[in-house]
Amino acid sequence: MAVTLQLIPRAEFDRARNDLALIADMCRANALVAVKRAGSGHLGSSFSALDIVVHLLWRELNVAQLGWEHSDRDVFFSSKGHDVPGLYAALHGLGVISAERLLRLRRLGGLDGHPDVGVPGIEANSGSLGMGLSKGRGMAWAKRFLGRSGRVVVMTGDGELQEGQNWEAFAAAAHQGVGNLWAIVDRNELQSDRPTEEILALGDLESKLRSFGWHVVTCDGHDHDALALAFGDLRAAPQETPKALIANTIKGRGVSFMEHPVALRDGGGTYRWHAGAPDDEHFERAHAELLARIRESLPDLQLESARALEGAAGEPESGIGVRRVTDEYVAAAYGDALRQLVDERPELVVLDADLASDCRIRTIELEQPSRFVEVGIAEQDMVSMAAGLARQGLLPVVNSFASFLASRANEQIYNQASEGTKVVYALHYAGLIPAGPGKSHQSLRDISLLAAVPNVTIAQPANSAETHALLRWAVEDAAGDVALRLAIGPSPRRIDLIGEVVPGRGTVLREGSDAVVFAYGPVLLHEALSAAELLGTLAQVVNMPWLNRVDASWLAEAVEPFDEIFVLEDHAPVGGLGDSLRRSLAGRALTVLGVEGWPACGTPAEALRFHGLDGASLADRIALALGARTGL
Amino acid sequence: MAVTLQLIPRAEFDRARNDLALIADMCRANALVAVKRAGSGHLGSSFSALDIVVHLLWRELNVAQLGWEHSDRDVFFSSKGHDVPGLYAALHGLGVISAERLLRLRRLGGLDGHPDVGVPGIEANSGSLGMGLSKGRGMAWAKRFLGRSGRVVVMTGDGELQEGQNWEAFAAAAHQGVGNLWAIVDRNELQSDRPTEEILALGDLESKLRSFGWHVVTCDGHDHDALALAFGDLRAAPQETPKALIANTIKGRGVSFMEHPVALRDGGGTYRWHAGAPDDEHFERAHAELLARIRESLPDLQLESARALEGAAGEPESGIGVRRVTDEYVAAAYGDALRQLVDERPELVVLDADLASDCRIRTIELEQPSRFVEVGIAEQDMVSMAAGLARQGLLPVVNSFASFLASRANEQIYNQASEGTKVVYALHYAGLIPAGPGKSHQSLRDISLLAAVPNVTIAQPANSAETHALLRWAVEDAAGDVALRLAIGPSPRRIDLIGEVVPGRGTVLREGSDAVVFAYGPVLLHEALSAAELLGTLAQVVNMPWLNRVDASWLAEAVEPFDEIFVLEDHAPVGGLGDSLRRSLAGRALTVLGVEGWPACGTPAEALRFHGLDGASLADRIALALGARTGL
Repeated sequence: MAVTLQLIPRAEFDRARNDLALIADMCRANALVAVKRAGSGHLGSSFSALDIVVHLLWRELNVAQLGWEHSDRDVFFSSKGHDVPGLYAALHGLGVISAERLLRLRRLGGLDGHPDVGVPGIEANSGSLGMGLSKGRGMAWAKRFLGRSGRVVVMTGDGELQEGQNWEAFAAAAHQGVGNLWAIVDRNELQSDRPTEEILALGDLESKLRSFGWHVVTCDGHDHDALALAFGDLRAAPQETPKALIANTIKGRGVSFMEHPVALRDGGGTYRWHAGAPDDEHFERAHAELLARIRESLPDLQLESARALEGAAGEPESGIGVRRVTDEYVAAAYGDALRQLVDERPELVVLDADLASDCRIRTIELEQPSRFVEVGIAEQDMVSMAAGLARQGLLPVVNSFASFLASRANEQIYNQASEGTKVVYALHYAGLIPAGPGKSHQSLRDISLLAAVPNVTIAQPANSAETHALLRWAVEDAAGDVALRLAIGPSPRRIDLIGEVVPGRGTVLREGSDAVVFAYGPVLLHEALSAAELLGTLAQVVNMPWLNRVDASWLAEAVEPFDEIFVLEDHAPVGGLGDSLRRSLAGRALTVLGVEGWPACGTPAEALRFHGLDGASLADRIALALGARTGL
Repeated sequence: MAVTLQLIPRAEFDRARNDLALIADMCRANALVAVKRAGSGHLGSSFSALDIVVHLLWRELNVAQLGWEHSDRDVFFSSKGHDVPGLYAALHGLGVISAERLLRLRRLGGLDGHPDVGVPGIEANSGSLGMGLSKGRGMAWAKRFLGRSGRVVVMTGDGELQEGQNWEAFAAAAHQGVGNLWAIVDRNELQSDRPTEEILALGDLESKLRSFGWHVVTCDGHDHDALALAFGDLRAAPQETPKALIANTIKGRGVSFMEHPVALRDGGGTYRWHAGAPDDEHFERAHAELLARIRESLPDLQLESARALEGAAGEPESGIGVRRVTDEYVAAAYGDALRQLVDERPELVVLDADLASDCRIRTIELEQPSRFVEVGIAEQDMVSMAAGLARQGLLPVVNSFASFLASRANEQIYNQASEGTKVVYALHYAGLIPAGPGKSHQSLRDISLLAAVPNVTIAQPANSAETHALLRWAVEDAAGDVALRLAIGPSPRRIDLIGEVVPGRGTVLREGSDAVVFAYGPVLLHEALSAAELLGTLAQVVNMPWLNRVDASWLAEAVEPFDEIFVLEDHAPVGGLGDSLRRSLAGRALTVLGVEGWPACGTPAEALRFHGLDGASLADRIALALGARTGL
């Protein structure tokens, strides 16, 4: 990294105690450094939320005084979760999180990319949107039941309110009279990359919340006097009425070129600072701007070097992101292939739930807007809408992250499939990698979630060519639903594949003598091949893209010459390819090497090693098994 | 059946063409007969909806004229789905469904207990609540896209609006300007057994819908003049605005003792006519009352005997419901055990999503109201609320049907588990039986949906004693989440179990020589034992209540003496006990006999036979496998 990373030390926050706007800027500066250090993270909504977070933790709530273990403490958490770098920076400013740990954002044993209660000061796991108000209501109900004092304050995004669960929670909180629940809507007007009013307008939010029985106030979420007044209003509101603050904020607040609406204009209608770390130049500009403003109040501001802190943490800076990768993205191949199919097939319609850029379907949205449906952050609605489209004879291609689509819309997928129509589900960001976002985003259960739905075929391509072929097969040939798992990151190597797509059959990528290793997707096929290379000629590697369909005679031949059979799962060891192959492999033992337990958060290398799924670990595990069999 | 069942023939409907209230009553009479014949079904909301359904199909919509295949037809379906007996009766009145088929409600090859597009006139699969508006919007969007005319009219319940997906759909319809979508809320003020205002108040529904951007009118849903005016108003509303009619109706309308609020008062605060067939006496009173009113308009009303029609259908009336059962319900044992634990453990809190009677927790609600949380029909909200309760140190026991809880709230369960807290999930109505409600309700994927969540143990008890023991183990001993699968119907036999609950280990119920058969739950254990009895001494039967936890050494011993291993699944063959045992049984073949494909709708005997899972079929399948092995 060419830039020098410097944190504002904890002690400096004491010197700024009473200036909340200053403290918020100090947190912004440190969150920026942490995200730059991590190589990813969400700055836009960290920055929009930070005045509120600081106002709550430094002034309004009792938790910093009582500590995070006290049963009467006020509980605060953010339902949107991806704004956690800002919260981490605030917790560092309060002395709850060390500087060393702040610099280990998205690293193994550091700070999860989305909130996890294993981290001090984190009150709830979030990251998948829309669950926070329900959970907060549970906490608030429990406080009342247990005679504990303290409020429960849940921050939500504005785009997040598109998730229906919020409206279940709004209704229930009013009905149950849970007046110690506060909702704060960080109304920054942008969702992942476009304005909320474009994606799915919220309309008159005050009126909606009032019609759901809440006491509502609105204020400028960056004006601490206004925030103080608004919180005072909420405190004075009727005891049994749940309370909401709509805080009008600016996404990217604090760094001029990240602020809405300038940033949206600069991005040609797309907001660039929702996720991801800025490049060196933008980082330095942003950091300088923040420091300059902080120094207006604290001219003698001290900084500490990240490098020095890393030395203490025993972690070389070069360890991050150093991983040999190609410029191939199967996700990009999917986007290209889909665009082609949209041109060819007039019945094809593409659906999105506010992840168009990540799902590589932005081009279709721009070039073929009549064939593109944006439903907002509402996976259940998206799937059932697709079911309706399919009942009218269209072929919907439904896009979201695998972790959200396969689980949150699971019953809707089952319902759609039961109508005998066909929908293609694109399960983006399937598998362990990238491991930085953490367990809310890593999808290691999606095969298990769909495999028992009759008529759903689940497949994952290994490279761009196979992505084109499988998507075309899904659209043109498949009789029922197809769920296409897609890696979101770059392929660690380019995999050569020979042959056609034949349902239920895989392809040998490398020949070997003693063990056969089945794997799928670019990430674990790379590790399988790396392991096989370390093992000389011992291991044969087979790409098996069909995760719940097996041609039994092909499989019998494929395993026949080998003493040992391994299946690498970019999935939990339960419910994946291994279970599928076992169903066809009567009487042959098979060893599944998958992601056991909760997926690790960290760099790709850290996460793969943690789970014993990197090439070197796999080579050891395979050699051990072969050794045990041969008595070596 | 002691009563005589008589249908109003199709031809009689022609004589009543212009009197919609009369036609609605004729449909009520026939729906009543169909439900009585089936032994179950939902009369209360069929009756509240029928004036609207008849008004739509006979007057407002074009579908009866154009037919159900025409691409320009108006599409009508009910999202709540359980009101389908009324719709079936209307479709019979229009000549779309034959009298013979109407009498085969909830029978194999007849009419599904919840809507299925395989039945003529049915436009969408529903039954699990809250999906209809999204699906209808998809159809309406597609009509616009394809240049097809016709509206899409979706009926919803009022209680159903507690599902958050509706609010996703309301927002999206307004945003997308899908003005050819109509919603009709059957505002009958009662949900499964109590008033909506008690369960989870809807508040000012008009104002809510308006704040979501809809054009709304309200009228008396039994007054055909008022309905005509209201539909006229909707037709005249702005083209791009989605339209809603709030139809104030009376649950049980048309039969005095089934009508709200009389019926609620008679039931001591519980509405008795939501689900289930009336007994003979109530059937005869209801039928007589309806016929008397119909005869005021059609004094020479003709009737045809159900028996004659059955003769034509070649099906003996005695075939229904004739199944040897005991008076044991594991669900009742669960309710008793839970009540005991509520008394013993002050941290235990019971949650319900409007199925308190079915889940046998009504007693707790009445006796320990402070320990009982009703969230309405909102499974996601329920689970995340439970997560919040658990974070405050309480032990939530969450109740719903397995098909809804394990799928719709799947991501919320994963999120809760990831916080390391403990929640007990009671998955009621797990498995194939009863098969009358159909595939929206039969739960054959729930094991697969939860098995890959780290720290969730899934178990299903075989009898009352094991239910007590497993629930106590879940509450007192389990380290993480426990999902308890529970049969909802009567146990087909009383199963004797010896020994204690030992995680991962099963119990031999009957000894045998050649094959070992693993099964779980009262339904398939009965069939396993029946098969074993037919096979003499060939088959050993093992109760294995642990569906994703196996004590490998116990299992190795349990299978060692046997040539063949069978696993009976009250579940899909994918993702259930069979897959779990295979993971521990390296190198042994194992045959899974489970529910393949979509679960059959019918009587228990029909459904079990259809899937080859009744004792006689199982005996044949096991004998065949043994014969093949021994060369017999």
